[in-house]
Amino acid sequence: MTVRVVCAQLDPVLLDLPGNLARAADAVATAVGRGADIVVLPELVTSGYLLDSTDEAMSVAITPDDARLAAWRAPLRGTGSLVVGGICERGEDGRLYNSAVLLDAGGVVAVYRKTHLWNREKRFFTPGAEPAPVLDTAFGRIGILVCYDLEFPEVPRTLALAGADLLLAPTNWSELPRPAGEQPPQVLNARMAARANHVFVAVCDRTGTERGQRWTGGTAVIDPEGWVLALPDEDGYAIADLVVESARNRQTSTVNHVLGDRRPDLYRL
Amino acid sequence: MTVRVVCAQLDPVLLDLPGNLARAADAVATAVGRGADIVVLPELVTSGYLLDSTDEAMSVAITPDDARLAAWRAPLRGTGSLVVGGICERGEDGRLYNSAVLLDAGGVVAVYRKTHLWNREKRFFTPGAEPAPVLDTAFGRIGILVCYDLEFPEVPRTLALAGADLLLAPTNWSELPRPAGEQPPQVLNARMAARANHVFVAVCDRTGTERGQRWTGGTAVIDPEGWVLALPDEDGYAIADLVVESARNRQTSTVNHVLGDRRPDLYRL
Repeated sequence: MTVRVVCAQLDPVLLDLPGNLARAADAVATAVGRGADIVVLPELVTSGYLLDSTDEAMSVAITPDDARLAAWRAPLRGTGSLVVGGICERGEDGRLYNSAVLLDAGGVVAVYRKTHLWNREKRFFTPGAEPAPVLDTAFGRIGILVCYDLEFPEVPRTLALAGADLLLAPTNWSELPRPAGEQPPQVLNARMAARANHVFVAVCDRTGTERGQRWTGGTAVIDPEGWVLALPDEDGYAIADLVVESARNRQTSTVNHVLGDRRPDLYRL
Repeated sequence: MTVRVVCAQLDPVLLDLPGNLARAADAVATAVGRGADIVVLPELVTSGYLLDSTDEAMSVAITPDDARLAAWRAPLRGTGSLVVGGICERGEDGRLYNSAVLLDAGGVVAVYRKTHLWNREKRFFTPGAEPAPVLDTAFGRIGILVCYDLEFPEVPRTLALAGADLLLAPTNWSELPRPAGEQPPQVLNARMAARANHVFVAVCDRTGTERGQRWTGGTAVIDPEGWVLALPDEDGYAIADLVVESARNRQTSTVNHVLGDRRPDLYRL
């Protein structure tokens, strides 16, 4: 089965919830127009990232079943396509979460609350209590994780061991200094997560600057050997067609297997 | 403390045990002459890699206390320096192991038997039963692993959690196809192992061709952010001075820590 993944690399405006919802909805429509089976949006695409306080975060927090997210679902109607993107979530417990929501035309398919929080996120977000999920969908077995989660090799490994073919990662990657000619280290890391686990990885990052923080624009669709299949075009869309089941052949020689060669008895994790 | 690591990228000759021992001894002498505190040699540097059978492997197998390894130790005399390199080991149990030996001027400091075996190695080597070790040395806390071990993120993670500052990895990396401008994927993988765990990594790979198999020559000394500090010079020596204790500061923001931010309760490994 060939699955078209489209990552829409956007530049959300901090605290502009209605504008961000609308821009993301437009991007979903464009992506579906370009044949997307799966649309990936950045982390915290509804709120912007560099929130400064609980009050600010609360002011742009929504629930995954917020009626306004119908605008993301509308372009999916009649397609079976899926969209995943990051929201600043107000939980039923009144707490704030940095979440990824997976939607289809009918509603909410899954919500994942980021389990590894970066820097100021710890001020106002509660880390998720549930591991990153793997969902059996019409487009293969999809693992979802968010940004800093990827820095912990245990997360993509856990998802691969749970059967994921494809990892979807909304991110907001801070721009880091790097030597000339080098890819951003977060992109290299995502590539090696793909390679170590023989899974496809689709990262949707963001562009722009917020409160002096520049973003990487590191969006990439990566194959199970760690090679980049697609980067954003001039409009910010990274588009790749994936034979998702090919990730499941994790045999690397007649006697080697990416996961089967593990020695869990010897790991002290 | 600044520690000079010198990786000596050689081209061992298959089945030429005396010649390989002598060439490695020369390389150790050269490295020590260039100020090495730690010398790293390739995997299976005494035997060559593409052994075809138990008989072939047995014909070039040695024990870690083989008298001929005194030639590697001689240049270390009076220095306190260390050398690690790969041998085809004949165990006291009569079995063959793909091992790394760590020697100082006085004798054998440690032996590590590779725990993840690649392809034909499974025909004649027994996988090690003990995890990759971390050794407290005069040059910092050193983790040792061999080649394919690095492909399992659990191994460098286990070593970092055990306190390693610096990982030493003798390798024989098969040359893989790669897009123009890309580093070998094994080098990228080693870089991301360094970054994910905030450790220095010194990989000593090999060059040449054996029985039609080309080798990568992927030797590199890598810093804890994943950047390459040194590649081989025209003589095959990669030389870097490491402030080894700097690996121990794994704080990445005032509230983030490379290891402390892990969520082991959520990993299913």
